[in-house]
Amino acid sequence: MAAPLVDPPFRRVAIVGLGLIGGSIALAVRECWPGTRLTGVDAPAVLAHVVGSGAIDRAVTRVAEVGAVDLVVLAAPVHDNRALLAELAVHAPRPAVVTDVGSTKRDIVEAAAGLPVAFIGGHPIGGAEQGGFAFARADLFAGHPWILTPSGDTAAEPLTALRTWVEGFGARPTVLDPAAHDRLVAFLSHLPQLTAGALMATVGEAVGADGLRLAGRGLIDTTRLAGSPANIWRDICATNADAIGEALDALIEQLTVLRTGLAAGAPVDHLFAGANRWRSELLKRRG
Amino acid sequence: MAAPLVDPPFRRVAIVGLGLIGGSIALAVRECWPGTRLTGVDAPAVLAHVVGSGAIDRAVTRVAEVGAVDLVVLAAPVHDNRALLAELAVHAPRPAVVTDVGSTKRDIVEAAAGLPVAFIGGHPIGGAEQGGFAFARADLFAGHPWILTPSGDTAAEPLTALRTWVEGFGARPTVLDPAAHDRLVAFLSHLPQLTAGALMATVGEAVGADGLRLAGRGLIDTTRLAGSPANIWRDICATNADAIGEALDALIEQLTVLRTGLAAGAPVDHLFAGANRWRSELLKRRG
Repeated sequence: MAAPLVDPPFRRVAIVGLGLIGGSIALAVRECWPGTRLTGVDAPAVLAHVVGSGAIDRAVTRVAEVGAVDLVVLAAPVHDNRALLAELAVHAPRPAVVTDVGSTKRDIVEAAAGLPVAFIGGHPIGGAEQGGFAFARADLFAGHPWILTPSGDTAAEPLTALRTWVEGFGARPTVLDPAAHDRLVAFLSHLPQLTAGALMATVGEAVGADGLRLAGRGLIDTTRLAGSPANIWRDICATNADAIGEALDALIEQLTVLRTGLAAGAPVDHLFAGANRWRSELLKRRG
Repeated sequence: MAAPLVDPPFRRVAIVGLGLIGGSIALAVRECWPGTRLTGVDAPAVLAHVVGSGAIDRAVTRVAEVGAVDLVVLAAPVHDNRALLAELAVHAPRPAVVTDVGSTKRDIVEAAAGLPVAFIGGHPIGGAEQGGFAFARADLFAGHPWILTPSGDTAAEPLTALRTWVEGFGARPTVLDPAAHDRLVAFLSHLPQLTAGALMATVGEAVGADGLRLAGRGLIDTTRLAGSPANIWRDICATNADAIGEALDALIEQLTVLRTGLAAGAPVDHLFAGANRWRSELLKRRG
């Protein structure tokens, strides 16, 4: 990732929450937009690590202490971002642009609509197996989508600046309506998560710990997401329940058709031919 | 994998079908039980590759030509193994032991019951992403379970010999009743397979090829099995429909409870706590 030959779209940036995503953004800014003055906001225990790594220039523990910046990135858990946004609306200098990295977008975009902040929702796709600053990497976003969800009020200039900024990290920005985003991720991300969890629980309950000894790689791969921390998924489900419900209904319907066909001795080829085809499409676009 | 300090339990072995599994068995025998005389049975085009690699001593295209051996391993697709078994019953010299490597066991064990062969069902767990002799590896079975399903008629001696033989490959033999095997793999293997297929089809149909561009690693991992060839799964479903039906019912029930809870605003913590716990158990035993 070489530094681009354009001026940094934001010279003073504050990142609120320095876990895997916020920390990786800090490292990516260091590599890609050198000269940026970076302020990190987090609990003292987290900041001690981050300051030692040289990833930020200034560490504060409260949003109120951020001071004059051009961009604020909310990278705390979804649940905390709403409160942080309200705090920012009181303390952040205008015309700072505010964005976030949460997995659902209608909730936070609606919350921002009532506040005097220039908010553009953001959602970098990709991630890693383990959270926390210790696993942060400057190239976490390279080659991956980064969805931006402006509201109707968003001006063209800050949106262009934000696109340029994430392109610098090697990410591929895509602009979506918050509702379109939430429906898409209900299928692309939340449904796989819930399915992995439901599958793991179903299999575990049926075969017990001793039966799991005989599992193959298929179960291990298919249930990888079942290891995700429950608290993250609580927030995601709470802020996207309707879209997730639609996705769950579609999967239950698919499984029910399969189950009925199986009982009637119908071949399962139709499902597998379709699944094969969609899997090829997936790998072509994201493999 | 060093050669064990015991005599090979089988000195003359025929392997019928030299794809990924049959080919890997041939390579593992070469490493672990040197001095074994290996006969391979397959189509001429496959045999040309295998003979060139030195993995077998003798190549024939029909089971009738196998001649005098101590063990026959049926490693063709599940559907073909039944016919091959009937052919063997006519041509194989007694008292050769016959085993297979298919993914379901009641069907083949029942078929063998009516024939004059000493049949012990087998199912090595593990596998690899891609099939065919080109992907065969001597260490494919090392550290993985290898289920053996004797029938009530099976004598103690051939079962002990078969255990010793697969232990030589580094596999962990487990003896199960054919029905217990089929129920276990319905949950451990067939349900993940069908779930991955149903999930991939559901997501693809909902978001389309363009939406898949925005998928993260979660969907890619969770749907890996959706790339499996349809024909293999047709046979598996046909020979294990009742057990797979039970497994599908359990998953549909789990997803329906989740869906109802979500609509009522209930937290999903319960599912995730359970899934987390079972996932840890799985990794402890098979990670």
